[in-house]
Amino acid sequence: MEANLDATIALLERTPTALNAMLRGLPDAWTHSNEGGETWSAFDVVGHLIHADLADWIPRTHWFLEFGESKPFPPFDRGGHLEITQGKSLAQLLDEFAEVRAEKLNELRALNLKAEDFAHCGQHPALGSATLVQLLATWAAHDLNHVHQISRIMAFQYREAVGPWHKYLGVMHCSGHSAPA
Amino acid sequence: MEANLDATIALLERTPTALNAMLRGLPDAWTHSNEGGETWSAFDVVGHLIHADLADWIPRTHWFLEFGESKPFPPFDRGGHLEITQGKSLAQLLDEFAEVRAEKLNELRALNLKAEDFAHCGQHPALGSATLVQLLATWAAHDLNHVHQISRIMAFQYREAVGPWHKYLGVMHCSGHSAPA
Repeated sequence: MEANLDATIALLERTPTALNAMLRGLPDAWTHSNEGGETWSAFDVVGHLIHADLADWIPRTHWFLEFGESKPFPPFDRGGHLEITQGKSLAQLLDEFAEVRAEKLNELRALNLKAEDFAHCGQHPALGSATLVQLLATWAAHDLNHVHQISRIMAFQYREAVGPWHKYLGVMHCSGHSAPA
Repeated sequence: MEANLDATIALLERTPTALNAMLRGLPDAWTHSNEGGETWSAFDVVGHLIHADLADWIPRTHWFLEFGESKPFPPFDRGGHLEITQGKSLAQLLDEFAEVRAEKLNELRALNLKAEDFAHCGQHPALGSATLVQLLATWAAHDLNHVHQISRIMAFQYREAVGPWHKYLGVMHCSGHSAPA
């Protein structure tokens, strides 16, 4: 599947509604528990998705268009969601995610990008050169990465509850990690 | 987190809406592509979830209550979704999943299970003894297992599109598999 803007946007515009349907109103034991230590809960992940929309994808798009490969864009702050989640409920975060995502997709559409813009290159501070089409595809894949993570974090809460079925449930044996993007 | 019926049902009743929000109306390239060979697409997974609701969780609950450990319940047919998906659109499957899930949860509620029922044991054909509370917890974890799988299958479609970010996206490196439950 080649990345194209329509397919990327189609996915991006569905994620807030999907997470809202999956998470809103669930008992906190599902949404506020993590995988131990400093790992994230589903609640934290929603905060991270808001933060990434604010700090990452569209700001980086502007950076690509303005600076090209002449200077790398600033690194992403992996702890940046803490300021966003502080004192909020999951319901508030889900509302905020829906608003921020809609806003950022409007910004993207307003850029009115053409085929020649997609090949535009930028400089990732650690990964080196990347194209704009890769950046936008990563925005969508990053959503999927975190849906993947949320389902794993929540399944972890039932790791003992499922008894002998633990062996059969791939999600219980997943060691996938979210990572800065 | 201990399994309890309310937490299990809260999760189970959200999955059809969540998958509907995530998948309905997406380009087929997202929903009808698999991870190669005989693997499943997101479309196939929705068919499998319908099939598991019809053939697995509630029928097994009845089996547990009727036969206890005296005889193992029948094994699950992993290809059983093929009959369900044949000739249907994803939209039809999503509607069907919502209906079947609501029906099965009504059946579960109508059983009016009490604390003493949950310790009731049954015999899995391969895994041996399990309790009813473990069976029902596995129903919920099985949903999460397949949300995890769907996000991975869809991310796989953008494995090349994301260019250098491939390295940073945990979902691209997940080897989790769905397995019979």
